[in-house]
Amino acid sequence: MPKISNKANLMPSSPIRKLVPFADAAKKKGTKIYHLNIGQPDIETPPSFLNAVKNSNIKVLEYSHSAGNESYRKKLCGYYKSYDILIDTSEIIITCGGSEAIQIAMNTCFNSGDEVIIPEPFYANYNGFSMTADVIIKPIRSYIDTGFALPPISEFEKLITPKTKGIMICNPGNPTGYLYSKDELNALRELVLKYDLFLLSDEVYREFCYDGKEYVSVMHLKGIESNVILLDSVSKRYSACGARIGAMISKNKEVMTAALKFAQARLSPPSYGQIGAEAAIDTPKTYFEEVKKEYISRRDFVIETINKIPGVFCPKPSGAFYCIAQLPIDNADKFCQWLLEEFNFNNETVMLAPATGFYSTPGAGINEVRIAYVLNKTDLKNAMLCLEEALKKYPGKTN
Amino acid sequence: MPKISNKANLMPSSPIRKLVPFADAAKKKGTKIYHLNIGQPDIETPPSFLNAVKNSNIKVLEYSHSAGNESYRKKLCGYYKSYDILIDTSEIIITCGGSEAIQIAMNTCFNSGDEVIIPEPFYANYNGFSMTADVIIKPIRSYIDTGFALPPISEFEKLITPKTKGIMICNPGNPTGYLYSKDELNALRELVLKYDLFLLSDEVYREFCYDGKEYVSVMHLKGIESNVILLDSVSKRYSACGARIGAMISKNKEVMTAALKFAQARLSPPSYGQIGAEAAIDTPKTYFEEVKKEYISRRDFVIETINKIPGVFCPKPSGAFYCIAQLPIDNADKFCQWLLEEFNFNNETVMLAPATGFYSTPGAGINEVRIAYVLNKTDLKNAMLCLEEALKKYPGKTN
Repeated sequence: MPKISNKANLMPSSPIRKLVPFADAAKKKGTKIYHLNIGQPDIETPPSFLNAVKNSNIKVLEYSHSAGNESYRKKLCGYYKSYDILIDTSEIIITCGGSEAIQIAMNTCFNSGDEVIIPEPFYANYNGFSMTADVIIKPIRSYIDTGFALPPISEFEKLITPKTKGIMICNPGNPTGYLYSKDELNALRELVLKYDLFLLSDEVYREFCYDGKEYVSVMHLKGIESNVILLDSVSKRYSACGARIGAMISKNKEVMTAALKFAQARLSPPSYGQIGAEAAIDTPKTYFEEVKKEYISRRDFVIETINKIPGVFCPKPSGAFYCIAQLPIDNADKFCQWLLEEFNFNNETVMLAPATGFYSTPGAGINEVRIAYVLNKTDLKNAMLCLEEALKKYPGKTN
Repeated sequence: MPKISNKANLMPSSPIRKLVPFADAAKKKGTKIYHLNIGQPDIETPPSFLNAVKNSNIKVLEYSHSAGNESYRKKLCGYYKSYDILIDTSEIIITCGGSEAIQIAMNTCFNSGDEVIIPEPFYANYNGFSMTADVIIKPIRSYIDTGFALPPISEFEKLITPKTKGIMICNPGNPTGYLYSKDELNALRELVLKYDLFLLSDEVYREFCYDGKEYVSVMHLKGIESNVILLDSVSKRYSACGARIGAMISKNKEVMTAALKFAQARLSPPSYGQIGAEAAIDTPKTYFEEVKKEYISRRDFVIETINKIPGVFCPKPSGAFYCIAQLPIDNADKFCQWLLEEFNFNNETVMLAPATGFYSTPGAGINEVRIAYVLNKTDLKNAMLCLEEALKKYPGKTN
C-alpha cells in the first residue's frame, strides 16, 4: 500500500473537529448542545442574495471568468469604495471562499520554507494552508490582558530572519474579536516598509465593528500598496458561508498577474455564489444595522454574564462575533471534552472551542476558550447558565 | 517591492490563454470566431439541476459538511453503482470542481519532489497543479499514429525511479479523446502493483464513450483498491462547469482520512452546486442518449471532413469531445495565432488549441491542434470550411 505524503501526515486537524465525536455521543444520549464553538451565524442570508439565485435564468451553467464575473467585480469596486478602498476590476480575483484567497496568496507570495509572522491566537486553518504551501508560520504572542492588542513592533523585529517574507493579520480578528487601531496598523506599515515584506490581511469581519470604533483596512495605508494583499469573503458579511465566494485583492500588478495563473489553473469560482453575492451588494443598510445591533446585544450579554462567573476573565471585543475567555480551569481541551462527555445541566450543555488550537506556541491558551456568540439571546442565556454550573463542578477547576 | 515566489514565476500559463488577446482583437475587427479551443459545451444543463437550485428553500446559506452533503454523497453512491463502482459515503469527498479533487489528491499522496508519470499529451492544468504541489510530472509519450493508445509498459518502467510515487491518467482522455481498453488498464494495474504506486484517474468524461466501447474505471481493477484514486466532476456530465462540483474517491482509508483534513481546512464545497448536482442524478437516461447522439454526430462530421483536407490526419476518438489533428503546418502555436491575427474567410475564423501546450516534451505536438467539438453542426461546418481555407493560405504550410 503506497504511503501518504508527509504533508498529509502532518496536516493539522482542527481542535474543534476532535470534539465532534463527543458532541455526537452527547446528542445521542439526548443532551441538547449549545454550539458556541463555530462561526456559523444563525442570521438569515439577505433575500437579495437568495432571490437572485432563485430567479437566475441559466440555460448552460458555464465557467465564469477565472477572476470572476466582470459584472460582479465591477460592482464590488463600488462596495469597497464605500469603505474608502479604491480598486479596479483588474485588482480583484474572485475565489472559492476566503480559503482559496489565502491559498492563492500564499502560493503567489511565498517560497517553500519562507516565514510569515502571524499574531497568535490566529484562525486555526492558517496552519493547514501554510502546511499545504510549505510556508512556516512564526507566531507572535498577543495576550488576553490587553484584549489581544498588536504585540510591540520590537517583538516582531526579534522574529525577523532572512527567510521572513510576510506578515499576516486578521482584522477584526477571529478568534479574538480584536479590532486593530490606526496606530497599530501604521506601526505595521513602518515594519513592512523597513523589511520589504508582504502584508496579508484577512478582513472578512469588516461589517462587524462596534462601539463606533473605526475600521482601518491595510488598503488604507499609504506607500505600501505593492506590499498589501487583502483577503476577503462574503461568508460572514451576508451570512452566506455555503456560497464559497471570497476575493483576493491587491494593487501589486505582478502579484495579481501571477495569482491569475493559479486562478486559471482551477478554471473559475462558483457561478451561483457569484450571482447571489453580486445581488447582495444592494442589501439595504438597515439589514446590516439590524444584524450589528443583534450582535452587539449578544456580545454585551455574554461579556457581562461571563465576567460575573468567579475566576473568569473575558475582555470585551470590538469586532467580529467571537470572544476569548480565560477560565479557572487546568486545561481547556479537557474541559471542552468534559462538557460534552460528562457534564449536563437540565439535560443541556455547551460546546466551546479550546483556545489552544488557535495558538502555535505549545501550552499557550491552556486555560482559554473561544466563544462564538452566534446564537439567539435565549440560547445564549441557557448556554451561559450551563457554563456557570459546569465551572462549579469541573474536577480540574483551579479556583 | 517584495518579490513573488518562484512557483508563481514558473507557474505555466495555459497555451490557449496566450491566444485570448488575439481573439479579442479579431472580435473587435468584427471577425466571427468559432471556438473549438475550449471544453465549454453548448449543451443545456439538465432542468433537474437548474430547477433544484431555483426551487431551493434556504434561509441561512450555511457551510455544508467538509466532505459534502451526506444526502448528495449517498445518492452519488447509487450513481457510481450504475457504473459498477461500489463505494460508500465515507469514500467520497465532494470538491470545488475536479480541479480541487486533483489538488487535494496530489497533496495527500505526493511529497515535494515526488515524480508522477502521466501519458502525454495531457490536460494542461495538471502542470499548474503539480507546480503548486511541488510534484514532478514525468511525461510518457503517446502518439497520434496509434490514436494515443497507452504507451508500452516497458516505456513506463524506463521512467521509474526511487522518486516515482504515482501514475496519473485521464480516461476518456482530454485532449486525445482516447478510451483505454480493459487490457491497457490491466497492464497499468500490474505496474501499479509491482512498484506500489498510486494510480490517479481523471474520469470526468465517463458519460461520453462511443461506438459501444466499454468504459473501464480504475475502480474496477481488482487488488489495487488501496492504490486507486478516482477524480471526478459534474462539469461535463451535466454541462454544469460553473457549478464547481467535483469529487475525490478512494477506498484507501488512510488517503481519505488525510484528504478530509485538507477538505476541512477549506471548510466546505459550494452549497448550490451540490443541490443541483444531487438533483441531477435523477436526470433521465434519454437526456444522455440525446447528448451522446449529438456528440457522435459532431465527432463523425469533424473526423470525416477534416481527414479530407490534404495533409491532415485525425484519428477517430472513442470518448470525450475532443480530437487531436495533425496538420500540414510548421508550428501549431504560430498557426493558431495566425488564424486569429491574419486570417479570415468571409469575415469568419476558427480558434483552436495548439497541442504543444498538452505535451511536456519540448517540440512534441508542434504540428498538432486540439479540436473541441462543442458547437452545433452548422457552426462546425463553417469552422471546418475556415480551417480548410486557412490551410491553403497559411504561409508556414508544409505540404
